[in-house]
Amino acid sequence: MAKTPARESIIKNGAFLIHSKGYNNTGLSDILKAAGVPKGSFYFYFKSKDEFGLAVLDYYWESVQGMTDAHCSDKNVPPLKRLARIMDVYHKLFESMGFNCGCPIGNLMQEMSDLNEGFREKVSDIYSRMKDFIAQLLAEAQEKGDLPPSIDIDSTAQFILNSWEGTIMHMKVTKSNEPFNLFKQMIFERILK
Amino acid sequence: MAKTPARESIIKNGAFLIHSKGYNNTGLSDILKAAGVPKGSFYFYFKSKDEFGLAVLDYYWESVQGMTDAHCSDKNVPPLKRLARIMDVYHKLFESMGFNCGCPIGNLMQEMSDLNEGFREKVSDIYSRMKDFIAQLLAEAQEKGDLPPSIDIDSTAQFILNSWEGTIMHMKVTKSNEPFNLFKQMIFERILK
Repeated sequence: MAKTPARESIIKNGAFLIHSKGYNNTGLSDILKAAGVPKGSFYFYFKSKDEFGLAVLDYYWESVQGMTDAHCSDKNVPPLKRLARIMDVYHKLFESMGFNCGCPIGNLMQEMSDLNEGFREKVSDIYSRMKDFIAQLLAEAQEKGDLPPSIDIDSTAQFILNSWEGTIMHMKVTKSNEPFNLFKQMIFERILK
Repeated sequence: MAKTPARESIIKNGAFLIHSKGYNNTGLSDILKAAGVPKGSFYFYFKSKDEFGLAVLDYYWESVQGMTDAHCSDKNVPPLKRLARIMDVYHKLFESMGFNCGCPIGNLMQEMSDLNEGFREKVSDIYSRMKDFIAQLLAEAQEKGDLPPSIDIDSTAQFILNSWEGTIMHMKVTKSNEPFNLFKQMIFERILK
């Protein structure tokens, strides 16, 4: 389906509400009210709430890609510095949101993996691409000699991402910076040495 | 409130459904049906769904405590072996459940931290006690010389727990053992060296 202002508004407002309250806890009527779109027209744009939910996942992924491109593509900055930079960017974003909401991908991974196979597959695919992004920076670092050759790139990237998701959850419950500071210290001083 | 069979049945059946489907996605009528308790009697046992939810959190915590006591209290087993053992026990439990459901504490941490201050406080407290449990084993290991004195017990225990929660989420989305194997390898071969 082509992009239309109404469809985009439903996705954008839905993405915000789902990020804030969860997928099953967000009613279509709330989304349509926030989007300023008449209730009857939802099914003109989406076959079902789940088709809409998958479009929201694409929207989240585009946002992640946009952030990483903006902050990590400057090859003049050493790769591990770029990795630290994107972590800092997300940390500042969470802080600016009062440590609410958490990771939209991680939230749906937790909430929807058992409930809907379409969500599980799409979240798994996006999560794998997030891991690939970290792996690419680690591979660059290894090529430059900034990482020991003994470090397995792919599994280390996966462990960093999994720890990151747990860290975000801990920030969400403690409403504090501490979990992030601990994460960064452990990753850069212990895992990537 | 004293423990009664009906109240216990509501909590036990509710704990199972919330673990499977999420808190906001589980209706009281489903819980009462599963518990075999007449709908009208819920408010005899609980003031609200949220009071009931907090009792479910206590139930989860008792379950975690029971598991750790059963598998980790034998002081004849070296402390790091006891830590590996409880990880293996939970891993086998998740595997036996088809990697569904995930960690009941982590799920509610993610779902409820922003939505209900009572949940946030209780989950935060339970999570802190889970960290203390790991810290206690690490402290024992350090006393015995099985861990370098340079390792900070409390922050390392917290990092292990956060990584564990992220690992469980990754098992939930991939429905595989791989995230667990990677977690264990990273914790025992990199973090606890």
